[in-house]
Amino acid sequence: MLSDGPTAEPGDLIQLVSPSKKIYFVRLNPGGELQTHRGVLKFDDIIGKPWGTEILSHQGRSFYLLQPSLAELIQEIRRNTQIIYPKDIGYILVAMSIGPGKKVIEAGTGSGAFTTALAWMVGEKGCVYSYETRQEMQNLAIKNLNRLDLEENVEFRLQDIGEGFCEEFVDAVFLDLPNPYDYLEHVRSALKPGGHFGAIVPTVNQLERLLPALHNHQFSFIDITEILLRHYKPLYQRLRPTDRMIAHTGYLVFARSTSSAQ
Amino acid sequence: MLSDGPTAEPGDLIQLVSPSKKIYFVRLNPGGELQTHRGVLKFDDIIGKPWGTEILSHQGRSFYLLQPSLAELIQEIRRNTQIIYPKDIGYILVAMSIGPGKKVIEAGTGSGAFTTALAWMVGEKGCVYSYETRQEMQNLAIKNLNRLDLEENVEFRLQDIGEGFCEEFVDAVFLDLPNPYDYLEHVRSALKPGGHFGAIVPTVNQLERLLPALHNHQFSFIDITEILLRHYKPLYQRLRPTDRMIAHTGYLVFARSTSSAQ
Amino acid sequence: MLSDGPTAEPGDLIQLVSPSKKIYFVRLNPGGELQTHRGVLKFDDIIGKPWGTEILSHQGRSFYLLQPSLAELIQEIRRNTQIIYPKDIGYILVAMSIGPGKKVIEAGTGSGAFTTALAWMVGEKGCVYSYETRQEMQNLAIKNLNRLDLEENVEFRLQDIGEGFCEEFVDAVFLDLPNPYDYLEHVRSALKPGGHFGAIVPTVNQLERLLPALHNHQFSFIDITEILLRHYKPLYQRLRPTDRMIAHTGYLVFARSTSSAQ
Amino acid sequence: MLSDGPTAEPGDLIQLVSPSKKIYFVRLNPGGELQTHRGVLKFDDIIGKPWGTEILSHQGRSFYLLQPSLAELIQEIRRNTQIIYPKDIGYILVAMSIGPGKKVIEAGTGSGAFTTALAWMVGEKGCVYSYETRQEMQNLAIKNLNRLDLEENVEFRLQDIGEGFCEEFVDAVFLDLPNPYDYLEHVRSALKPGGHFGAIVPTVNQLERLLPALHNHQFSFIDITEILLRHYKPLYQRLRPTDRMIAHTGYLVFARSTSSAQ
Repeated sequence: MLSDGPTAEPGDLIQLVSPSKKIYFVRLNPGGELQTHRGVLKFDDIIGKPWGTEILSHQGRSFYLLQPSLAELIQEIRRNTQIIYPKDIGYILVAMSIGPGKKVIEAGTGSGAFTTALAWMVGEKGCVYSYETRQEMQNLAIKNLNRLDLEENVEFRLQDIGEGFCEEFVDAVFLDLPNPYDYLEHVRSALKPGGHFGAIVPTVNQLERLLPALHNHQFSFIDITEILLRHYKPLYQRLRPTDRMIAHTGYLVFARSTSSAQ
Repeated sequence: MLSDGPTAEPGDLIQLVSPSKKIYFVRLNPGGELQTHRGVLKFDDIIGKPWGTEILSHQGRSFYLLQPSLAELIQEIRRNTQIIYPKDIGYILVAMSIGPGKKVIEAGTGSGAFTTALAWMVGEKGCVYSYETRQEMQNLAIKNLNRLDLEENVEFRLQDIGEGFCEEFVDAVFLDLPNPYDYLEHVRSALKPGGHFGAIVPTVNQLERLLPALHNHQFSFIDITEILLRHYKPLYQRLRPTDRMIAHTGYLVFARSTSSAQ
Repeated sequence: MLSDGPTAEPGDLIQLVSPSKKIYFVRLNPGGELQTHRGVLKFDDIIGKPWGTEILSHQGRSFYLLQPSLAELIQEIRRNTQIIYPKDIGYILVAMSIGPGKKVIEAGTGSGAFTTALAWMVGEKGCVYSYETRQEMQNLAIKNLNRLDLEENVEFRLQDIGEGFCEEFVDAVFLDLPNPYDYLEHVRSALKPGGHFGAIVPTVNQLERLLPALHNHQFSFIDITEILLRHYKPLYQRLRPTDRMIAHTGYLVFARSTSSAQ
Repeated sequence: MLSDGPTAEPGDLIQLVSPSKKIYFVRLNPGGELQTHRGVLKFDDIIGKPWGTEILSHQGRSFYLLQPSLAELIQEIRRNTQIIYPKDIGYILVAMSIGPGKKVIEAGTGSGAFTTALAWMVGEKGCVYSYETRQEMQNLAIKNLNRLDLEENVEFRLQDIGEGFCEEFVDAVFLDLPNPYDYLEHVRSALKPGGHFGAIVPTVNQLERLLPALHNHQFSFIDITEILLRHYKPLYQRLRPTDRMIAHTGYLVFARSTSSAQ
């Protein structure tokens, strides 16, 4: 995980924010530098500075040195691929009781945005089992997790979940796939009794197929939600929401694995 | 934290869900029983049952045995007091980079709903420092945390934060108080450089006072959001949102502690 | 339509608002009175008073005398039956270019809430053709429209639209029925070329059936929307949204009748 | 107002929609033509065609001939200036009981989008009194209204409403100005007793000033709302909301002019 000290030290992953709020994540290697449109920042001038400090580029432009935040790390991964958004991730974590020590299956890995959040939350004592069929996506995810030293909390599996999962008695299974309804028998086998199932699907048609499939496989306490997030402009004398917002990412579906009384 | 086994064992905190979806949290003490409008459930009949199992009351009504989930534990605390909602809690955790090992200050404790979520997420290696001025609220929170064996992750402080915080170099400070703008100097002293500030306020008037106060105390990267959560009825042949929803809980404000280049 | 004068005159439909904001619609017949939990209001004391005036009951409680407003008349009809809400009605009127002189078909009539809005907007030179199969619902609607002297703008038809419409070349057809997809051929026959089609359906399943049916019947420019309305508490020192809101009424669907180039 | 016939006739204002859904509003003058990136459309080929018909350009590309719709006329005016949106306009009309024959004051005129909607709804027997201080904006609005033959329903006034309104006993006054709270005394003088006041303001700060001002000027039944509109993609096999939406246009405020019992 990220360094714990009050200052930026050699080898730390750091977050530099430009005057125009552009965010750079870089490894603070001695002798290195970051070149931007607003000038160059030399890493040797940054090493030893407290987090939160303003750093001037050689052009005198004002950058800020921050310890990377989870939400912004996730957002950065988003730039390249379709990911689950922070607004959804936070709710998923709470709805599925994710926390330190938990064992969680995720499929597919994608570029590793949600994997990052899961690995962050389960910690060293937990484990994320992350399934993906495309080698290049898995490679990208591994690279993203490595950068944060979170890869030890994850078992990456290059495997089609149509063949089932390798694990049993996991606390939670989350599917981010077009056809989650096709894998529910495997999900039941991998989950501990009473465990948490979750999925995200973008269309109502997928919802309509997932719901009866959950019933058929004895999942109960089905909860379907969608989350709308609205930002405000931080101008206290002209306070108002931003003009535009994300209207839709996906429908979140949660359920618990149950079994009948004999 | 909660037991890790596949079955409900003596002394476990369990979640029983009635036919009408009413949720009971009870400690599974041998010889005990739960009396409900739908009949009696004897704990000796439950001990040893796998999580997720259907349990019949003496009237033959169908209950489900579940390991308590974080979201529902939080909701239960809500029944008695005003709390931060799961929709907000999830986003706060991600926005403030809460996770295993983090040190987090919270004020006020209230009935301990958000304390529960924080204690759950920081784990044994982390710590929540939770401030409250009302003895009876703190007692209620301690009781709520004890029940989940999460109290070891929390330092409860019966103290007015107007006198400052006891901690330094914490990763994050979250204020759920009517006047967060009055404590920002103390927040800066307690936070590690670059650390995360967060607050929830119900009215726009509080937002208008908080924003300039954050600027004056050198907080940057201010983000203001509100989260709307909409549930759907899980009927796949008549799929539609529920009729009503929560329209407002509060505005979430986040910022980072920063300092100028000399 | 409603009286146009500055004062409440004998025979006018008036709106009285109680101290607790309860709304009464009554006909101001000389010698009459309104009995409420907050005292009695004698109509002879009200006749001749300007609209907007505070009226005291015999208990000295404060009521307000208002000319009935369209939105509140609609809301009142809602109390007894499922109706289309003002938030949806306003958008429908604009989206379908309803206005003075327009000829509009509506099915079903229901209790006449939307009929009221349509009759209000098309005026004396326009006409609403309102279809319903249940006699008692039509009677209720007629009563509601009569009260506002709007019945002359409406042709009520007790007829199953499965047998087609009596009209041709109408400007717009709006269906508030469970199965709008079953009537599109009849809708085309009744609409003038290029005319406006609109419908409201509560579930996504109905949407999924309506969309291909519209394509098959050469409707184009399909627009699907949903409208969320949030109220704020009018307290300027503690300004915030209300706690709860309507999460869903229905999906609005609009299209235009088109035909191919030969 | 727009022509009432089933076919496009010489001199009609028509709406042509391109293959990429670009909308053109043009006057169908004999001998004229529309030049587009998808080819030329000669008006003599269009004259006499039924509304809704597909028209082929000289390149064989498919356009549709429609009678202009109110919502799209409003949207087109939007292209050039900041306007009130159809989602808000529809609700305002219903909330303020606008309809045929009503007398309504609007300030400021702006580019005439809301003026168009008001003129459309009050019809020939009603009147819109529209105030503006900038000559060039008024000219633009007059041009926009002329095009629809709606200018006869409007009295344009080039006048600062700080000097008061020329009218008395109007049914409704709507203010779309930065400082509606400064004109409430004039509004009361112009409104008939019990009449409808409405305003749109983009920021919460303006709301906070408007609310006490309304109280001070004896307006009652204050209602504050905001409207969120979400579109869906009309693909029945992959049905879902669009990715982005308008997050905020303004807060709508409504009130009634009242007076105390003596």
